[in-house]
Amino acid sequence: MSLLIVGSIALDSVKTPFGEVREALGGSAVYASMASKHFSQTEIIGVIGKDFPEEHLKLLEDNKISIIGVEKVDGKTFRWKGVYNDLNKAETLDTQLNVFADFQPKLSEKHQNTEYVFLGNIDPVLQLDVLNKIKNPRITACDTMNFWISGKLEKLIEVIKEVDILFINEDELKMLTGENNIFKAAEITEKYNLKLIVIKKGEHGAIAVKNDFVFFAPVFPLKRVVDPTGAGDSFAGGFMGYLAKSDNFNEKTIKNAMIYGTILASFDVEDFSLNKLSKVSSEEIEFRKEKIRQSVIF
Amino acid sequence: MSLLIVGSIALDSVKTPFGEVREALGGSAVYASMASKHFSQTEIIGVIGKDFPEEHLKLLEDNKISIIGVEKVDGKTFRWKGVYNDLNKAETLDTQLNVFADFQPKLSEKHQNTEYVFLGNIDPVLQLDVLNKIKNPRITACDTMNFWISGKLEKLIEVIKEVDILFINEDELKMLTGENNIFKAAEITEKYNLKLIVIKKGEHGAIAVKNDFVFFAPVFPLKRVVDPTGAGDSFAGGFMGYLAKSDNFNEKTIKNAMIYGTILASFDVEDFSLNKLSKVSSEEIEFRKEKIRQSVIF
Repeated sequence: MSLLIVGSIALDSVKTPFGEVREALGGSAVYASMASKHFSQTEIIGVIGKDFPEEHLKLLEDNKISIIGVEKVDGKTFRWKGVYNDLNKAETLDTQLNVFADFQPKLSEKHQNTEYVFLGNIDPVLQLDVLNKIKNPRITACDTMNFWISGKLEKLIEVIKEVDILFINEDELKMLTGENNIFKAAEITEKYNLKLIVIKKGEHGAIAVKNDFVFFAPVFPLKRVVDPTGAGDSFAGGFMGYLAKSDNFNEKTIKNAMIYGTILASFDVEDFSLNKLSKVSSEEIEFRKEKIRQSVIF
Repeated sequence: MSLLIVGSIALDSVKTPFGEVREALGGSAVYASMASKHFSQTEIIGVIGKDFPEEHLKLLEDNKISIIGVEKVDGKTFRWKGVYNDLNKAETLDTQLNVFADFQPKLSEKHQNTEYVFLGNIDPVLQLDVLNKIKNPRITACDTMNFWISGKLEKLIEVIKEVDILFINEDELKMLTGENNIFKAAEITEKYNLKLIVIKKGEHGAIAVKNDFVFFAPVFPLKRVVDPTGAGDSFAGGFMGYLAKSDNFNEKTIKNAMIYGTILASFDVEDFSLNKLSKVSSEEIEFRKEKIRQSVIF
């Protein structure tokens, strides 16, 4: 099955203790698609300005990611500037929405017929709009962030009620639920009729929860994390890509999707922008999978 | 094999969002022994004052923990008072060392011949003193805390060089090494010739590291954590008790020791003091082990 990803396409300027990049390729749709393409035909929906470098589009195309849904409009591309003094926390220095401010996802007939959909962290109003256009959804998922939890909670909850899977950071889950115990907080799966909640814990791994089902994915142990930008999106992309490929939602598939998400995120953080993530081979992915297996089985 | 545990015996007054206890049984030697006794004959070395309630000694004896090494001296028992507003972080309100201030561990001939030793979080000078008295150590381990890292670093490093296993909190490992990446920080196993480092991450589980060997233990998912006091000691006690029982140090044993540590810690935090930990059955332990297995295999 193919996967439809709706999200941001950005030019990121990022500084970490290991160096910096300026106006490098980024954005939730880009990171997620570069991870999911290992498993499924991936289509992205997003918007760029007239200044968007052709080489970036070429990189996506070279990776067999469909960019038919990428709209180029008058104006400048979305820009984000951030610094990580502590690699676990980004500090935003500047956000220029530019053409992203008026982003209205346009779905072709083919897009509307996609059965697997990942909605990157964008305005819940837009997420809901996309969801309403999907004709026969099999599995839909969304990501979100504190900005929408505090700013557009009502709309966000509409989205959460509509999707099957919620990807959310641990801190944001606590914020959304007002509950500090994440296993208690995960009870929102019942409240909002979610099929699954995936709690992203950064350097502490990720947890998938639904009723009595709990699955812990550790991190892949890296002695050098260069740039965490896009880790959550690579995770979600790897997860959703594998789900679309498997075309089922049993526990075995969910567990493997969690591990593939973990692996793709681990490649992402090893270099700036898409520098490493775009060069990963299936062999490298499977190698890390076996390493992870050895680090958790007993 | 039997396990020797040297550490504190305390009367703890603890307040958490779920209630409070006053002058309840606590201390590193007590928590660790109540966990290890499931696997190995356990001997504790510690000091109490004349005010120490007989019922606490009886509880230890009823659990087949040898208290021959518990010295009763003139004065009052060590007291600790703390509050957890956030269940992940204890705030100390009061510490009264009392008889613990002059604690000098005394080891009988039998104690000196014990092959498995766990040194709870006490003054590294005392830890070193005990280590020097052990005649044929098979596996020795120590725990420590920020207080000794900042106050007695040189002595602490002597201890670390002497033991086989270091149990340490994630934040304290970062403090000890000046390194934020824990997998990089774990390279101290080479520097200090450790057989293993066990990084305790509280609600995020624990990691065992040595060279290329990495093992992740998740937490046992609990929707209600009542009192985290003693979690690290229960973990170490369960780990060391299982190690002594197995009497080997291969990877399979280490992995299982990590899981038993996790399980005993999970029982500890479900109630105040030893209320739950002292009532756990082997069946309950094995039940949680299978639950954990299902939550990590893929």
